[in-house]
Amino acid sequence: MRATVLHDVRDIRLETVDDPQLIVDSDAVVRAVASCICGSDLWPYRGANRLDGPVRIGHELVGIVEQVGADVSTVAPGDFVIVPFAYSDNTCAVCERGVHTACLHGGYWGGPDRDGHFVDGLQGELVRVPLADGTLVKTPSQPKEALIPHLLTLADVFPTGHHAAMCAGVTTGSTVVVVGDGAVGLSAVLAAKRLGADRIVAMSRHEDRQDLARRFGADEVIAERGEDGAALVREMFDGIGADCVLECVGTDDSMKQALRSARPGGSIGYVGVPHGVKVNVPAMFGRNLGLKGGPAPVRAYLPELLQDVLDGVVAPGEVFDLTLPLDDVAEGYRAMDERRAIKTLLTI
Amino acid sequence: MRATVLHDVRDIRLETVDDPQLIVDSDAVVRAVASCICGSDLWPYRGANRLDGPVRIGHELVGIVEQVGADVSTVAPGDFVIVPFAYSDNTCAVCERGVHTACLHGGYWGGPDRDGHFVDGLQGELVRVPLADGTLVKTPSQPKEALIPHLLTLADVFPTGHHAAMCAGVTTGSTVVVVGDGAVGLSAVLAAKRLGADRIVAMSRHEDRQDLARRFGADEVIAERGEDGAALVREMFDGIGADCVLECVGTDDSMKQALRSARPGGSIGYVGVPHGVKVNVPAMFGRNLGLKGGPAPVRAYLPELLQDVLDGVVAPGEVFDLTLPLDDVAEGYRAMDERRAIKTLLTI
Repeated sequence: MRATVLHDVRDIRLETVDDPQLIVDSDAVVRAVASCICGSDLWPYRGANRLDGPVRIGHELVGIVEQVGADVSTVAPGDFVIVPFAYSDNTCAVCERGVHTACLHGGYWGGPDRDGHFVDGLQGELVRVPLADGTLVKTPSQPKEALIPHLLTLADVFPTGHHAAMCAGVTTGSTVVVVGDGAVGLSAVLAAKRLGADRIVAMSRHEDRQDLARRFGADEVIAERGEDGAALVREMFDGIGADCVLECVGTDDSMKQALRSARPGGSIGYVGVPHGVKVNVPAMFGRNLGLKGGPAPVRAYLPELLQDVLDGVVAPGEVFDLTLPLDDVAEGYRAMDERRAIKTLLTI
Repeated sequence: MRATVLHDVRDIRLETVDDPQLIVDSDAVVRAVASCICGSDLWPYRGANRLDGPVRIGHELVGIVEQVGADVSTVAPGDFVIVPFAYSDNTCAVCERGVHTACLHGGYWGGPDRDGHFVDGLQGELVRVPLADGTLVKTPSQPKEALIPHLLTLADVFPTGHHAAMCAGVTTGSTVVVVGDGAVGLSAVLAAKRLGADRIVAMSRHEDRQDLARRFGADEVIAERGEDGAALVREMFDGIGADCVLECVGTDDSMKQALRSARPGGSIGYVGVPHGVKVNVPAMFGRNLGLKGGPAPVRAYLPELLQDVLDGVVAPGEVFDLTLPLDDVAEGYRAMDERRAIKTLLTI
């Protein structure tokens, strides 16, 4: 099969690799229908994470089950499935508490599993899915093509925006600021709106992203950053700041922006993988700020969010503004790296 | 009147000072019935906070209203009142959201108010209470003497333990670990029990405190600390740790203990004033841990907690294991500094 391999900084290639096979009885093999490129894929692409040789990459996929192991009972060949960005057993003590990204037996794509068997990245044609029963979620029927982008967002980006909102405690009537206008930030706007936020301010300086933020439910968009941005946010919210701030970038600057934008007693939900983020604990304490975040437990959120996508309540696939065939994956990375695209969908 | 003044490290004296007077129409003057010494008073006593000359000290008081300004309408001379450790207007945008310790017009005892007028500490015979309507909470009638210690805990220590539990999201069925066996930690045990925690583990190495932790509702007490303590906690809670960890000390070690003791997706509520606390954000992110805390908004919690004290649902005054007259305030500090006492009540 063909699969995407990151060789070095900005050196990404589509290569022919061995087809994955069932290894243990809880595995499935899924044939990709669509995959996509995540903002977090840009960290290693740009060299922010150390690489020890070529790595398979990608962690968002929808596809059709091709084969299942003897122990797999919840999906069968031919099912259309969403493949979350982490695999999990959905039964351990941690999964029972809804934190599937810390599953005692699960893991992430593109490295060895806990038994040392290789696990594919998801920007390829086929994938071995460990713990298939716990990981895969099937749609009730074969979806129409127009629904594919929306379903694909359920693998990561939309539930990740939702997780930011959940971690910050967004609920009916909340005031919300979203820091970050990438695909996750925009998804966080949509998620906050869906959860009943009263007023949502998106921080963005790019016109196309500002427009999408508004379509997703932002009441206001502000281009100011730093103390100017925070002052404007306070002014907008009773002079004190927002109840909930969704930090969707992962840099120290964006976290500082988030902390400054929250009202006393407010909460920051953060989902950008932290790179060099430091927090001033005494300052947070003085203002009674809360901080919660991490890798979104996509599998926990999927049933609820899938239903809303199927019902047309939300259309999160609008975050894709570039669609390319898998052959052009390298151009997909370049377009996102150069901010020509918000998020690239790869058709297989 | 007589009032307690901290002159230098471990140099604390009861001195004669000017009686406080009403200054503005929203003031009241309250005559102390009982005050007490807080673990946080030991920070400056021990020299951990810089002192620029002698300071008035103390922030927990119950007493009788002696005088009120022309604008005060909710309390009158003769009322028995609880004086929270921060004064607040109870009407601003921040107080409306229940975060009275960040009131836009409020402040703490023992320094100037926002108009530059001196505000007394609360280990003295009389106190000028700014924003009396917003700050003071009266009891429905004059309490019996036996109730005084329990009412006095409502000024700080019990609502602070309650705040730790609220910040960590303790609710019916939660599993809870309490780090710190001082008066706040013990109060946090009681608060978690009151909120319906399913199982509470207190970390303590002192027999008298272990006993009180059990009386307050701890199901288990463990003396181990560091990784040994965390391993034991994980073992006790399905191999993964507790839902909620209440950090009631404020040191870097105690915060690390708390972070290690939480399960993935768990939350740390922290109320010990942070001294040198640093947190590893990427490690917290990887485990989806939440962190929230700050100075307890006592005024927000008072109506609910006062009712439970009056109804005998909780008896938080058991944290006092030493009662001294105000004359012996210096001995009260020494006893707590040397860990001979958990918490000292001062009768006036």
